[in-house]
Amino acid sequence: MASTPVDVKEYPNSYVFIIDMPGLKSNDIKVQVEDENVLNISGERKRNEKEEEGEVKYIRMERRVGKFMRKFTLPADCNLEAISAACQDGVLTVTVPKLPPPEPKKPKTIEVKIG
Amino acid sequence: MASTPVDVKEYPNSYVFIIDMPGLKSNDIKVQVEDENVLNISGERKRNEKEEEGEVKYIRMERRVGKFMRKFTLPADCNLEAISAACQDGVLTVTVPKLPPPEPKKPKTIEVKIG
Repeated sequence: MASTPVDVKEYPNSYVFIIDMPGLKSNDIKVQVEDENVLNISGERKRNEKEEEGEVKYIRMERRVGKFMRKFTLPADCNLEAISAACQDGVLTVTVPKLPPPEPKKPKTIEVKIG
Repeated sequence: MASTPVDVKEYPNSYVFIIDMPGLKSNDIKVQVEDENVLNISGERKRNEKEEEGEVKYIRMERRVGKFMRKFTLPADCNLEAISAACQDGVLTVTVPKLPPPEPKKPKTIEVKIG
């Protein structure tokens, strides 16, 4: 789970991070912005430990459990105040809107003095 | 996605197959029994192709798409008529109940004739 795969897409008005998180619910997942421009996505997948003690026997155990974390440095044009995240069918989608582009600087006219 | 991980657990009364399928909905997944005792689980994850044509640009593309299949030979004590499958949070659970154990054969008494 430490290496859970991520797609990152750029739209005209946003960046979108799509992360596979099968079996995790919203409250198992943490999305944070740290150091002003680092998006930190972390979570933990646990086995059902109560069950482990019971009469169950694992014949095959390929699914990884434990903590995982992915970090991404965000571009300068991100609106950090408007980040949203949603989880559906085991896939987390984090949307980071872009800030509007800075207004183009108007050409500055220098007065030409008559010599 | 071809190598989607699977756990297989044995309970006193059933076998349970747990398969990570992030982003797939129930109707993207097929669960079949073939050759009398082979459990075949298959599906396909697609990218949003309409979107591909638009104004989106992939910055990172780690999530695998495409078809996948996993096959498991079922033990002889499976009740193939009672298999059930459910998908939640991108995880498919297939439950295969066991048949009741055959009744122990009663000891056969051989009459001892008086010679």
